[in-house]
Amino acid sequence: MTETGLVLPKREIKPRETGLTILIDNGVSMNVFKDTIASASDYIDIVKFGWGTSLVTHALGQKIDWLRRYEIDFFFGGTLFEKFLSQDKVEEYFRYCQKFNCNYVEISNGTIPISNHTKAKFITDFSSAFTVFSEVGNKDISASNDQDGAEWIENIHEDLEAGAAKVITEARESGTSGICKEDGEIRVDIFDQITSSGIPLDKMIFEAPTKKMQTFFIHHAGANVNLANIALSDVISLETLRLGLRSDTFHSRI
Amino acid sequence: MTETGLVLPKREIKPRETGLTILIDNGVSMNVFKDTIASASDYIDIVKFGWGTSLVTHALGQKIDWLRRYEIDFFFGGTLFEKFLSQDKVEEYFRYCQKFNCNYVEISNGTIPISNHTKAKFITDFSSAFTVFSEVGNKDISASNDQDGAEWIENIHEDLEAGAAKVITEARESGTSGICKEDGEIRVDIFDQITSSGIPLDKMIFEAPTKKMQTFFIHHAGANVNLANIALSDVISLETLRLGLRSDTFHSRI
Amino acid sequence: MTETGLVLPKREIKPRETGLTILIDNGVSMNVFKDTIASASDYIDIVKFGWGTSLVTHALGQKIDWLRRYEIDFFFGGTLFEKFLSQDKVEEYFRYCQKFNCNYVEISNGTIPISNHTKAKFITDFSSAFTVFSEVGNKDISASNDQDGAEWIENIHEDLEAGAAKVITEARESGTSGICKEDGEIRVDIFDQITSSGIPLDKMIFEAPTKKMQTFFIHHAGANVNLANIALSDVISLETLRLGLRSDTFHSRI
Repeated sequence: MTETGLVLPKREIKPRETGLTILIDNGVSMNVFKDTIASASDYIDIVKFGWGTSLVTHALGQKIDWLRRYEIDFFFGGTLFEKFLSQDKVEEYFRYCQKFNCNYVEISNGTIPISNHTKAKFITDFSSAFTVFSEVGNKDISASNDQDGAEWIENIHEDLEAGAAKVITEARESGTSGICKEDGEIRVDIFDQITSSGIPLDKMIFEAPTKKMQTFFIHHAGANVNLANIALSDVISLETLRLGLRSDTFHSRI
Repeated sequence: MTETGLVLPKREIKPRETGLTILIDNGVSMNVFKDTIASASDYIDIVKFGWGTSLVTHALGQKIDWLRRYEIDFFFGGTLFEKFLSQDKVEEYFRYCQKFNCNYVEISNGTIPISNHTKAKFITDFSSAFTVFSEVGNKDISASNDQDGAEWIENIHEDLEAGAAKVITEARESGTSGICKEDGEIRVDIFDQITSSGIPLDKMIFEAPTKKMQTFFIHHAGANVNLANIALSDVISLETLRLGLRSDTFHSRI
Repeated sequence: MTETGLVLPKREIKPRETGLTILIDNGVSMNVFKDTIASASDYIDIVKFGWGTSLVTHALGQKIDWLRRYEIDFFFGGTLFEKFLSQDKVEEYFRYCQKFNCNYVEISNGTIPISNHTKAKFITDFSSAFTVFSEVGNKDISASNDQDGAEWIENIHEDLEAGAAKVITEARESGTSGICKEDGEIRVDIFDQITSSGIPLDKMIFEAPTKKMQTFFIHHAGANVNLANIALSDVISLETLRLGLRSDTFHSRI
């Protein structure tokens, strides 16, 4: 960063456990992908190949190789795990992740109706070979509305005890379900219960695809909050929000 | 596509008559254009150079050459035809399309107030030299609201009889008029009348710029429905929707 | 532009004083940046490196060099000036702009609570070394709602008298404050007072990040109105709007 004399929040340096920025690749073309990574690799920790996009991406291996070159890790979207599960092919998914030498796997139940307890068993299974990020929350908005903070806390605890390294809070690519209401407003009730529950914040990753969500989490959990589902085009903008260099977080003090 | 053991909807292979994905180029820069095409050419059938963008695109010929290399066809947006027509220069437009060796031409009346009957005459004229896609529906939202399903069906029949190879249903780049309401909701009344009218679905192309619209048409007309006005950045996402690899169409059965 | 026989509004040629298109770079990756500039340089006059993005952009110098090659100028977002000011480091900002050989500087008070009078003094200070664009309007929506047209006119006059070369009307990257209401509608009351105040329109630059805003200003101030905060991906679309080649301005007569 250019030397300016400005006093800015201190950012953790890569490799880091907090302040993670996790991008979502929604199927971006090859050179745009490479260019984004090369232009801003210091600000990117992990890339998620969203939902089942990895299956229809030609030259997926080329994207993965590019990430390794910049010491950025990756995982496949939880929906892909759920697709295999829905066809009773979890072992095939396990092998799929091994084939690409994944370090990380996301285990979720955002689309298929399995209990958190069942999900937790898969977390334990996959933990034998991968670092598991679990996901809590539902992609369907009416199912989301039915979940209260107490249920979220219970599920997060169960996932961590089952072996999840971190837990991701669902918000989709659009910020319209899970920890969000349909109109994009954050479920502050859930967030407040998480922060007052004693769960360490470095164990949490908040999906935050919109500027409004990024601003909220930075205001309430600090510049080094873990954020996911960041669009490739938002890497620099997010970094300025973390540093108080955009109007929305200009006066932020943590 | 990577071999995984998953059972997925069967997609038609290029060149295909159904399951068409037609992109809208809204004036994207040259390398992003080339990169999108090269990264996902199997999933792209035709590119529309939206409205009058072709007129202000430097090196339009370079874009067209790139498409030919990947066996992808193209046409110019109907608004450009209407611009020439509004200045009484339809012959100049005919020559403009010949100059670029167009195979396809779009004939529409979404902006200028000519009757469908008048439009149909132009369809016949252009059919002598080009494969014509006609468009039904209005870009103006109040004019759109005035059109009911019966009028749509009548216009579609008239266009096909006049020589249109396929008929496109208007939705704009934003999904806010034509077969949409102003708030982006689909006019299900019109869609239902089309599907129950006996018009073969492979004669129809639905503009579907939003994920909500893509999901609707895939749910109701299957994985191989013809869709247009797809943003360049949505090619892979659309393909995952067709294949049931995203939450929105996860449970789709056709 | 391709010769077609169409009669279109006459556009000013670069370098121009009216009809300016000013892009906002929100942190776009390097090759996308270069590609956009190279593909459409005739339609781009100035690029603003939005808010504090310049501080976290690696190889900012490379972006600037690329602009110079195409005779396009640049400035840093007003929020960056305000950040330095909030830490009592205006002299450091002055040097920051000198270091990058800026010709233009933006002076604003959209985020920090200083009076227009105080802002005007900084305009005068920076005018000694730079061409100053001042900005009127607030990024906060409730503060925006409190400002009426009379206050805007007064501030614009004060800025011009203090030495501003042109005055920019605030709308943010999203078009949701300043000269906009929170829902994106334009404050027509303010616009009308500006146009009837006798302030020459070539002294005004309207931030217009949305198609709705671009359409409004082109309809009411002509094809050669000065517009800013244009997304890099909207350069060609905006040019077609100016020329009446898109439905929204199809019938525009000025």
